[in-house]
Parts: sequence; C-alpha cells; structure tokens
Amino acid sequence: MSAHVFSRLLANRWATAKSLLCVGLDPDPARFPGAMHGDTSSIARFCIDIIDATADVVCAFKPQIAYFAAVGAETQLEMVCDHIRTQHPDVPIILDAKRGDIGDTAALYAREAFERYGAHAVTVNPYLGTDSIEPFLARGAVVVLCRTSNAGSGEFQSQLINGEPLYQRVARTAADSWSTMGDVSLVVGATYPDELREVRAIVGDMPLLVPGVGAQGGDPATVVRNGARADGAGLVVNSSRAILYAKGNDHALAARNVAIATRDALNSAR
Amino acid sequence: MSAHVFSRLLANRWATAKSLLCVGLDPDPARFPGAMHGDTSSIARFCIDIIDATADVVCAFKPQIAYFAAVGAETQLEMVCDHIRTQHPDVPIILDAKRGDIGDTAALYAREAFERYGAHAVTVNPYLGTDSIEPFLARGAVVVLCRTSNAGSGEFQSQLINGEPLYQRVARTAADSWSTMGDVSLVVGATYPDELREVRAIVGDMPLLVPGVGAQGGDPATVVRNGARADGAGLVVNSSRAILYAKGNDHALAARNVAIATRDALNSAR
Repeated sequence: MSAHVFSRLLANRWATAKSLLCVGLDPDPARFPGAMHGDTSSIARFCIDIIDATADVVCAFKPQIAYFAAVGAETQLEMVCDHIRTQHPDVPIILDAKRGDIGDTAALYAREAFERYGAHAVTVNPYLGTDSIEPFLARGAVVVLCRTSNAGSGEFQSQLINGEPLYQRVARTAADSWSTMGDVSLVVGATYPDELREVRAIVGDMPLLVPGVGAQGGDPATVVRNGARADGAGLVVNSSRAILYAKGNDHALAARNVAIATRDALNSAR
Repeated sequence: MSAHVFSRLLANRWATAKSLLCVGLDPDPARFPGAMHGDTSSIARFCIDIIDATADVVCAFKPQIAYFAAVGAETQLEMVCDHIRTQHPDVPIILDAKRGDIGDTAALYAREAFERYGAHAVTVNPYLGTDSIEPFLARGAVVVLCRTSNAGSGEFQSQLINGEPLYQRVARTAADSWSTMGDVSLVVGATYPDELREVRAIVGDMPLLVPGVGAQGGDPATVVRNGARADGAGLVVNSSRAILYAKGNDHALAARNVAIATRDALNSAR
C-alpha cells in the first residue's frame, strides 16, 4: 500500500462529506434486532446494514476485531471490509486491533490488517517502542494509542518522565519521528478533553482518533473545541454502540438518524 | 476457568519434567521441510509434529497467533491448541497475542484466548492500565509485557518515573496489585539480563516468561543465573525458531534434539 492513502482518504471525507464521525463496528449478536438476534452468523449482515445506512455521513468506519475473533467470525470481518472497499471506496477502514509486537511478528500483524482485511489503518500500542511500529508503517497507516478513554488510562500513561506525562512523550515521538516514517495518527479519548487539547498542541495537524463519545459519555462539542485543527477538521470521532443499537423499528434507519445527529452535533461546534 | 490453573500446571512441569523450556510455535510455511514447504494448510500438521516431538521436554507451549492470523489459519490454531490439551494435558498453553483493550472488548479478547483457543494464559500489554487487565484475570491467567526483548524496548519501558523505570513500575504493580486479583506472570527478554535480575528482585516467586534465547541471542546460563528463583524454577524460557527449524533429515527429531540441548543448557545453570 502506498504511503498516506489513509490520510488522503480522510482529508477527502472531511472536505466532501463534511463529517468528523467514525462509526465503530462492534457487532454484538445479543443486541441484534429481529431475526438476527443472537445469531453469530448474522454479524456481517448486521454490519453491512449499518454501513450502507451511514456511509454518506461518516469519515471512516472502525471495525473492532475482538467482536469477530471471540466467536470465530474472521471470514465475516473479511466480508465487511470487502463490502466497504467495493461499495464505499472513498471511506477509509480503521481496523481496531491494538496490535503490538516486534520484528517478524509485527510484520505478520501488518499483513493481517492490510492484506487479509484490506484495512487502510490499524490501531497499535506504543509500549514496545519505535522498532515495533516500523513494520506496520512499512505497509500502511498506524493509529497509535496515546491517551486511551478508559477510567484507569492514567495509571501508566500519565506518569511523569522529566516532567512530561508518558502520553505526551508518545505524542511527541509520533510528531517528531514516526510521522517522518509514514502515515501516523493518534488515539486520544473524548473522556479526557484537557489531554486532547494538549496532544493537539504537540502534534500539529496530525489526525486524532477520538473514542468515547456516545455510550462512554464524552461530549462532542468539547471534543471539537479541544481537538480540532484550525480548519475545523483533523478529528475522527468514534461512536459505536449509541449508533449500532439505536432504538427504532428499522434498525438501519435508527442508526442513520443517530449518526446524522452526531455528525451535526460535531459540525455545529466547528 | 478456575484461578491459577496455569501456575499450578507450570509448577508441576518444573517439578516433574525438570524443564524451564517453552517451545514457541511460530509456524512459517516458507521454512517448512519437504512436502509441507510453502503450504499454509500444513501449519497445524507442522506444529503438531513439533509438539509431539518435544512435549516431554518442555514446561509450556507458546503459539504466536500472528503467524496464524496473517494467513487466515485460525481453525488450524484451534486444532493445535486442542491437540495439546487432549494429548499433552499437563503442558500449559500460553497464547502469545499481546492483547490490550478496555472493558467489553478486553472481555471478548479473553473469550478468544480462553474459550475459543482453550489457552491457559495469554500475553497482554500493560499500557492501558489495571482496568484493561482485570477482564482477562477474571477468566484466566495473564502474562504481562514488562521489558520486551527487542532492541528498542527501552524507548518507553526504561523511562524514569520518580527515579524508577516504567518496566519496574509495571513489575511492582503486578506484584503488589495484579497478583492479588488472579494468576499473573511477566515477560522479560533474555536480551536484558540486568533488567531480568531487577524484575526478579521485585516480584518474588512470580513466573517470568523469557523470550530471546536461541535466534535472538540471549544466553541460557545468564538467564537462569539472573532470573530463576531460589529453588531454581520460576522461569519459562522461550525458544521458537532455533527449535522449529533445526537442521536435520527428520525435522521433528532435529527439533527434539535442539529442545533437549536447550533444556539441558538451562538446567546446567540451575
């Protein structure tokens, strides 16, 4: 994959679809509607319903591989990614896998994300250092965990190193070093708006993937105020459950309506 | 899975098989011998050959999931784990997946490791903090990355927090907190013998998984001297490629011979 395809697709979506919203694909059969309810073989069908109902209002889709792997549904994940690439080829795919390994093993995880699933970007964990990220950057875009959205994310990520929290050290390394090697973005949770502002100040125009609005409680307007670039773009704001399992007789239409409302809430703060 | 099954299986292997050796299952079809060469459908067959040839001289097996995931061979990984559990039920399985995620997603990765594959332990990344590790500990044993074996592992792991390197902070958190919540071990690379000694001093009798002997160049005698407990046990020393791709007309016998030599080199330093 040639470099920076992911960033270019994103920039195009921000400009033409006028959306900062990413729909996270976290398919939980226990929450599927109607005849699909509880049926693991309906995972791809459910995801494709959501994708087709929301593609025109999003800047990206983010399948979470754990939902597929837990039930042996890798083939359905292949179908979902293939559907996005063929039916919505302008919408980038972020495979949320949070991989992190070294050398040959990292290269195999890159092959999994970029060749097998055809993702444009994959989320990776920085704990193992630059030489664990290089094999991914050689094949596609990475979205590196910086400050995650969970309640306990500060336990290690906020520890001070020479007066600088670890997550800021990761952000600075991404801006100064990894961005010279390839297509790099960072993850910063909507649940930490102050940290989001600090990371934006460190990384310039780098895209930021922001989970934690919707079910996790992050506020869309605060996210945009603290995280957007001067041009109002630069953000990939993920919502999963609030959209996927929106209440309504037609689940796809209900999802579309919540997606539109979330996109609009984000845009009204730009 | 009831708590501490992994630790009890390990302790039993240390005592009865008198081995600190873990064989890492990193199946690369490009290195398979004879008719299996280059054939991804032979992955399970190759692994089972190695397993049956070495089971009596190891304390654990460690399949690396990336080798399976890159080529869509999850079903073969299921077969490999099932073979170990049925044919060699006293040998624990460490699924090397280096997972790390939050809440429901972490619970799904735990389901992948412990239910789908039937692993006794899974490797996890500490960057997201205690609340990302709890969902794994609720279902089985974790082996947390502490100081990894790659050349660049110090980039973040060795940064000082109040005078203490991050990897030592992780080790102390594992000893003081995570070990009260479940079955915890740590990963420390054989390529960092001084750090191995320091971690052993912090964690008491906790098992340490030590990759990096064999192809990565770590010295078995130094690993045992610096990492073993007072009773000479406490280590799970992994070797993958040096054993799997040992030279010889009969690949399984060649692997067995290298495994025996590595076990003996480790034991001679106890």
